Amino acid sequence: MKSKFRHVALIGKYQTVASGVSSASSRRVLEDIAHFLNAQGCEVVFEQDTARNMGITGYPVADVAAIGANCDLGLVVGGDGTMLGIGRQLAKFGVPLIGVNQGRLGFITDIPLDGYASALAPMLRGEYEEDHRSLMHARVMRDGRCVYDALAMNDVVVNRAATSGMVELRVEVDGHFVANQRADGLIIATPTGSTAYNLAAGGPIVQPNVDAIIVNPIAPHTLTNRPIVIPSDAAVRVQPVMDDRDEVFVTFDGQTGFDLEARDEVRVCRAEAPLRLLKPSTRSYFEVLRQKLKWGER
Amino acid sequence: MKSKFRHVALIGKYQTVASGVSSASSRRVLEDIAHFLNAQGCEVVFEQDTARNMGITGYPVADVAAIGANCDLGLVVGGDGTMLGIGRQLAKFGVPLIGVNQGRLGFITDIPLDGYASALAPMLRGEYEEDHRSLMHARVMRDGRCVYDALAMNDVVVNRAATSGMVELRVEVDGHFVANQRADGLIIATPTGSTAYNLAAGGPIVQPNVDAIIVNPIAPHTLTNRPIVIPSDAAVRVQPVMDDRDEVFVTFDGQTGFDLEARDEVRVCRAEAPLRLLKPSTRSYFEVLRQKLKWGER
Amino acid sequence: MKSKFRHVALIGKYQTVASGVSSASSRRVLEDIAHFLNAQGCEVVFEQDTARNMGITGYPVADVAAIGANCDLGLVVGGDGTMLGIGRQLAKFGVPLIGVNQGRLGFITDIPLDGYASALAPMLRGEYEEDHRSLMHARVMRDGRCVYDALAMNDVVVNRAATSGMVELRVEVDGHFVANQRADGLIIATPTGSTAYNLAAGGPIVQPNVDAIIVNPIAPHTLTNRPIVIPSDAAVRVQPVMDDRDEVFVTFDGQTGFDLEARDEVRVCRAEAPLRLLKPSTRSYFEVLRQKLKWGER
Amino acid sequence: MKSKFRHVALIGKYQTVASGVSSASSRRVLEDIAHFLNAQGCEVVFEQDTARNMGITGYPVADVAAIGANCDLGLVVGGDGTMLGIGRQLAKFGVPLIGVNQGRLGFITDIPLDGYASALAPMLRGEYEEDHRSLMHARVMRDGRCVYDALAMNDVVVNRAATSGMVELRVEVDGHFVANQRADGLIIATPTGSTAYNLAAGGPIVQPNVDAIIVNPIAPHTLTNRPIVIPSDAAVRVQPVMDDRDEVFVTFDGQTGFDLEARDEVRVCRAEAPLRLLKPSTRSYFEVLRQKLKWGER
Repeated sequence: MKSKFRHVALIGKYQTVASGVSSASSRRVLEDIAHFLNAQGCEVVFEQDTARNMGITGYPVADVAAIGANCDLGLVVGGDGTMLGIGRQLAKFGVPLIGVNQGRLGFITDIPLDGYASALAPMLRGEYEEDHRSLMHARVMRDGRCVYDALAMNDVVVNRAATSGMVELRVEVDGHFVANQRADGLIIATPTGSTAYNLAAGGPIVQPNVDAIIVNPIAPHTLTNRPIVIPSDAAVRVQPVMDDRDEVFVTFDGQTGFDLEARDEVRVCRAEAPLRLLKPSTRSYFEVLRQKLKWGER
Repeated sequence: MKSKFRHVALIGKYQTVASGVSSASSRRVLEDIAHFLNAQGCEVVFEQDTARNMGITGYPVADVAAIGANCDLGLVVGGDGTMLGIGRQLAKFGVPLIGVNQGRLGFITDIPLDGYASALAPMLRGEYEEDHRSLMHARVMRDGRCVYDALAMNDVVVNRAATSGMVELRVEVDGHFVANQRADGLIIATPTGSTAYNLAAGGPIVQPNVDAIIVNPIAPHTLTNRPIVIPSDAAVRVQPVMDDRDEVFVTFDGQTGFDLEARDEVRVCRAEAPLRLLKPSTRSYFEVLRQKLKWGER
Repeated sequence: MKSKFRHVALIGKYQTVASGVSSASSRRVLEDIAHFLNAQGCEVVFEQDTARNMGITGYPVADVAAIGANCDLGLVVGGDGTMLGIGRQLAKFGVPLIGVNQGRLGFITDIPLDGYASALAPMLRGEYEEDHRSLMHARVMRDGRCVYDALAMNDVVVNRAATSGMVELRVEVDGHFVANQRADGLIIATPTGSTAYNLAAGGPIVQPNVDAIIVNPIAPHTLTNRPIVIPSDAAVRVQPVMDDRDEVFVTFDGQTGFDLEARDEVRVCRAEAPLRLLKPSTRSYFEVLRQKLKWGER
Repeated sequence: MKSKFRHVALIGKYQTVASGVSSASSRRVLEDIAHFLNAQGCEVVFEQDTARNMGITGYPVADVAAIGANCDLGLVVGGDGTMLGIGRQLAKFGVPLIGVNQGRLGFITDIPLDGYASALAPMLRGEYEEDHRSLMHARVMRDGRCVYDALAMNDVVVNRAATSGMVELRVEVDGHFVANQRADGLIIATPTGSTAYNLAAGGPIVQPNVDAIIVNPIAPHTLTNRPIVIPSDAAVRVQPVMDDRDEVFVTFDGQTGFDLEARDEVRVCRAEAPLRLLKPSTRSYFEVLRQKLKWGER
């Protein structure tokens, strides 16, 4: 057996039902990869929704909990969104993940599908670097009780509805009052999320090995309300100053959301377990940045 | 008769029903001003909703159309929001307006309530400067027909709902394709609106006597999608690239709004009539900027 | 004769002496174009420094004044820098210019050398659009006298020396005090210059047909000192608040400069004559923006 | 004896020779504080240049090395600039510092002179919080040898001369190529320096307890060259891509500088010893931010 990882889970775009041609081609891609993994000495299990959506048969399937309990590696084939979704679920099990992008290069799915074999073969033999990507744990508190609970790999965003005016947000860090910010909203981002929405909203790029999170107001009325980088173990509290007519939402990685009421409070801290993300040992973080942000070109 | 303006309309926060103490004090303020205007030789008429909401009696009242037809001047007492609301309605009649702020200094309600008499007296005698503030005319087109029509003094904003991802907007200027922008939304702002939402979203300050409008993406995914200043007589077309599940809205001065459907198109051009805005002849535009943006302080 | 323009001046990178291979290839390029112009019925004259630097013989040569007096068109082959240099000199003569870029696409040299013939042929027949690009006229005043005088097509920049701290600049527009800005410097840019240094320093893109100039502080200490767009016929005064040890400079299009002394004042207004710039009638301004700023790519 | 600190050094604006009235008032201030410290049971020594410049007699004086060797605390009376200068020299000795501002509130001299006694008394008794502020160690390498060596508390800045064009800088982090950036220059800032030049140049605020440094290009030509936050123990290399005519400088806290030559390289890493900075235990970092950046005001 060549692979360092024996039990490998294959995870595709499990949340979207592909149809017709795209389904057939996605199925073929995943089956190819499964075949490649077998040849490297891995036993392959398919994430159950992936198998169902793609119509893949002939392989064992498992749900997330079973993957977490039994697999040595998860191979995620899709885009950054696919990785965010499965990463939030698998982080707590400590299963390392590798991301293969199907389409555009992603920040966290940085292995191109074309020629995946030459990138994956050395990684399976143990030639990789392991990044620990912090997740955030967010809770919505109402009258002292937690009414919603979620993890985020990229960002927790509190923002206003499209048709209402600015929202006023009272922000605290580690029990210290920071400011009452009037803005479109507030992004609380991990280093992983620094290159996503945070970057579009004027925040800095934060290298994933910095122990920090970013608190970044979106289009703030007060121009000196700039992005603030705080320690990753800080506790952030965000309270919308709203009345019952206002509509304010909190979203997690832009994938799930919750409708806040007056007097609700959003509390964010570092999640217990980080995501273990494996990447080719020859690939630097800045290489991905250069490509995605087109720095190389003159 | 000392005043150059004979028939003067008094307009307060006509859209909000004040109650209790605030109502009483607002009423007293307006009655004081009415008394002052009478003493300057003006005949005063109250905007009808203002009179009703404030419980003002003993003066003639008029609706907007009657004010437009018969008054030589409108005196707006409130904040910038009050001025935006009435300005959109009165611009087409060519009635000049003066803005008195009740509370914080406004960009377009720049006469403080304290000591209003010493600022207004010379203006009524003719010592003022007249700014022409362009308005924008926006139409929502669906299957070739206009399904919504509105004016804006500050800005026309197309933006996404709080819980959906970025919106993709196809932008054209004078029939030329500009870009497909993926962003939280797009602000189309007049010089008057340049210091409002546009400024919070990274756009430039534009002096009101520049014949221009600003096209400014909100938190654009592509970092080179920067604010663009185009001629005020340009025709802007914005088409959301959306499917039926997406929620995209267009709002006008942040005060009125409309829910867009797939294949709708927003067309914006300069409105026929600008607003005539009078200000003390001793006051420069930059003086208001310095105060509002705290430039004077070190 | 097919060409609408009879006497055409050819202008290359006249300020730099090319050597060896690059010289030979540049000479061949210019001779090719001259030959093409002859074939279109034009009489070609070479700008004298271009001819000397490139070692071109066999064509009549002329200095800038003679080109200004006698030519119907100037064809500039180089980069934006070449165009800025010659444009500042030729604008006052009213000779229209066409820019061909040798290398990267330029904002104002927007015809690629490859396939120049297919782009130029229709333009010589009269199928073009004419842009009028405003220039700025800057004067340095000392004790009431003008001690330096220059034109700028892109920008007039007042900035500090590398090793001194921030400079404090007192800015006035049309006699109105704007602010005392402490910053690395101040950019006063035309719409043409809006996509140059101004853009790097956070200023907006301004379409060339907007009658405006931009006043944009570089890295201002006060975060609310944002770019301001003012009318193109405004008069700007910038006074460094400096003592005799401070080093403050003013530069014009980044190509020429002057060392300011304490109590000097820089005055900027619109130059009398704009540059006449011809471009293919099929090319929109936004097309060049899309390419240069990579908007088209996803 | 009430004070926890026995030997206290008093350090004023030691680098500037005050004259006349300002000298007399500064001397009186320092003598007042010395008297107060004596009353708290401290033995006071004056930094020698401070004593000489202010004309203070009757107290023992010491140079920086002696203060480093013998004092338990340094009390710095001046502005942030005074603190930066002395902090760079004293950090390696491990002597903690307290900053009292004479004039405007500083980010690191956050105790107002007015009422200093009520702020200092509890601190001398041991009621304070201790911040460890990382310094950076910068070296200029030429042909493999170090030709200049300096510490910085705020920032190391590589930038162009006023009259030359953009500089191109090759940036590496921990041996990984980041980008070739064309810009006015590059700021490498500590969290302490994040609110200084870095903030003016669009960088984020970084809380001092984050183990990070910021790499921030000044007015970069490529708009996607955004500020990057990297770990504080990273090694940064900056190589100007220049020829012999170009003028490129490196400065340290904006107070000292060095003229770079072609092929020089600037290497920056964390200094061995951080500065120990004491502040009132009741004061949060965000309180100073709110005041300096005027967040509290609406």
